[in-house]
Amino acid sequence: MRFVTFKHNRQTYWGIEEEEGIYYSAKLVSVFPTLLSMIENSSGIDFFKEINQFIQHSEAKILAPFIPRKNIMCIGKNYRDHALEMTGNDEGQVPKSPVIFTKSPSAVIGPNEAIDAHEMETGQLDYEGELAVIIGKRGKNISREDALDYVFGYTIFNDVTARDLQKKHQQFFRGKSLDTFGPFGPSVLTKDEVKDPQSLSIQTFVNGELRQSSNTAHMIFPIDQLIETLSDGMTLEPGDVIATGTPSGVGKGFNPPKFLKSGDRVRIEIDEIGVLENDVV
Amino acid sequence: MRFVTFKHNRQTYWGIEEEEGIYYSAKLVSVFPTLLSMIENSSGIDFFKEINQFIQHSEAKILAPFIPRKNIMCIGKNYRDHALEMTGNDEGQVPKSPVIFTKSPSAVIGPNEAIDAHEMETGQLDYEGELAVIIGKRGKNISREDALDYVFGYTIFNDVTARDLQKKHQQFFRGKSLDTFGPFGPSVLTKDEVKDPQSLSIQTFVNGELRQSSNTAHMIFPIDQLIETLSDGMTLEPGDVIATGTPSGVGKGFNPPKFLKSGDRVRIEIDEIGVLENDVV
Repeated sequence: MRFVTFKHNRQTYWGIEEEEGIYYSAKLVSVFPTLLSMIENSSGIDFFKEINQFIQHSEAKILAPFIPRKNIMCIGKNYRDHALEMTGNDEGQVPKSPVIFTKSPSAVIGPNEAIDAHEMETGQLDYEGELAVIIGKRGKNISREDALDYVFGYTIFNDVTARDLQKKHQQFFRGKSLDTFGPFGPSVLTKDEVKDPQSLSIQTFVNGELRQSSNTAHMIFPIDQLIETLSDGMTLEPGDVIATGTPSGVGKGFNPPKFLKSGDRVRIEIDEIGVLENDVV
Repeated sequence: MRFVTFKHNRQTYWGIEEEEGIYYSAKLVSVFPTLLSMIENSSGIDFFKEINQFIQHSEAKILAPFIPRKNIMCIGKNYRDHALEMTGNDEGQVPKSPVIFTKSPSAVIGPNEAIDAHEMETGQLDYEGELAVIIGKRGKNISREDALDYVFGYTIFNDVTARDLQKKHQQFFRGKSLDTFGPFGPSVLTKDEVKDPQSLSIQTFVNGELRQSSNTAHMIFPIDQLIETLSDGMTLEPGDVIATGTPSGVGKGFNPPKFLKSGDRVRIEIDEIGVLENDVV
């Protein structure tokens, strides 16, 4: 199933997106007001027999699937070619263990919402197209073999970054967490519909120019290993989001750099998962 | 006022701690079930006239004041002597801008709850006594002059750390976020009762041995500057927690290091704010 959150007649609903439109249930939404609360609290999908309302795509404004409760867990330098472009081709800087930082949920925006250029804060605004994993089940000390059982589904994440702040403050949180730095969505595709999450083409375009083009096969630490590492001593909870890292081709990777500026449009495409587009203002 | 969250007859309440006992209102708790929801949603304190129930200290088991929604924002190396002890006295490593990382709220525990030694994950378990700031009002681009208006109150935080994981994963999140690595509390003292948050003695004891002894006057970046920096481009929200960093005397700072082990008892005392104690198991 493909879940979306949308606005219709000034009300917010979540529902299931199909080619012909969106199926939803105002009654279910009154019980689970957000997609996050559905992921957190519903243990089965029996209740989907309740879904008896339908609207056309044109009547729904798609929002971010949900605003995460906790910070988004982001994986740094998880594609070898990106690790190299960020470090002047220093092989010694390719991580031997996952580099994990977080982004504030206050940064999250939906598809087609504007990324604020934050010109007062940064002169090095950058994009990072990423596959995001939504956790569906509480767990700790999860083995690689069982890891994908804990996944609810997948979506797209743009780990927007102020490169100058990222460097200035050493730890990445601040350079990653300015308001609007977390485009997220547009839909969450449940794991049963993704044949192999480690075999998806991922591309990022800026104003139509292809900047990033890779495949999730090239992650240094694949999703099952990330879940094993993150859950080793730390409980993962339903609704947790893991952004799995970005391939090469970020603005900082070019010489001279190609940072984002007001008026740019960023488009991230991931096979099967969808397309996430946002303008910079 | 001094707010606490407590268990009584298997129910959880929040209330106001006084010398003679705790005042609370089951009716208020039914509207604001957690201290966090009170901080997030109540705009005044008029409703305190509703508080008409009382219990003795002995009848209440004090819990963490609340489980934060978002990750706790932690400031690294915010006391000069600690920055030096962590870097072999390298003056160049004293931060020129705040170093900000986060800890998962899933790590939070209350006073007298056990810190898990996590012997499978770490051989370098360490303590960090810190003053924690609770944000009370939503704001962005807050000036130093106005910063303390955005504070709800203060409490104590133990930024428990696995030094080996902190180093192995480069970014600090994982080494800081194992379950039980966030002792928090016991009470939140509202800002009007703290004369000067930059003039509080802070001490940490392990099994009665004084390990850390400093004063919040020695923060490199004081609270008003932290709020100014954090809110520069990023919205702060009620219930956000900022752990303001630890002075020298952590286990790793000794030669040989004095890491924590099962059976140890850690006690953090901050002038006016209180005492936070936890055993390692």
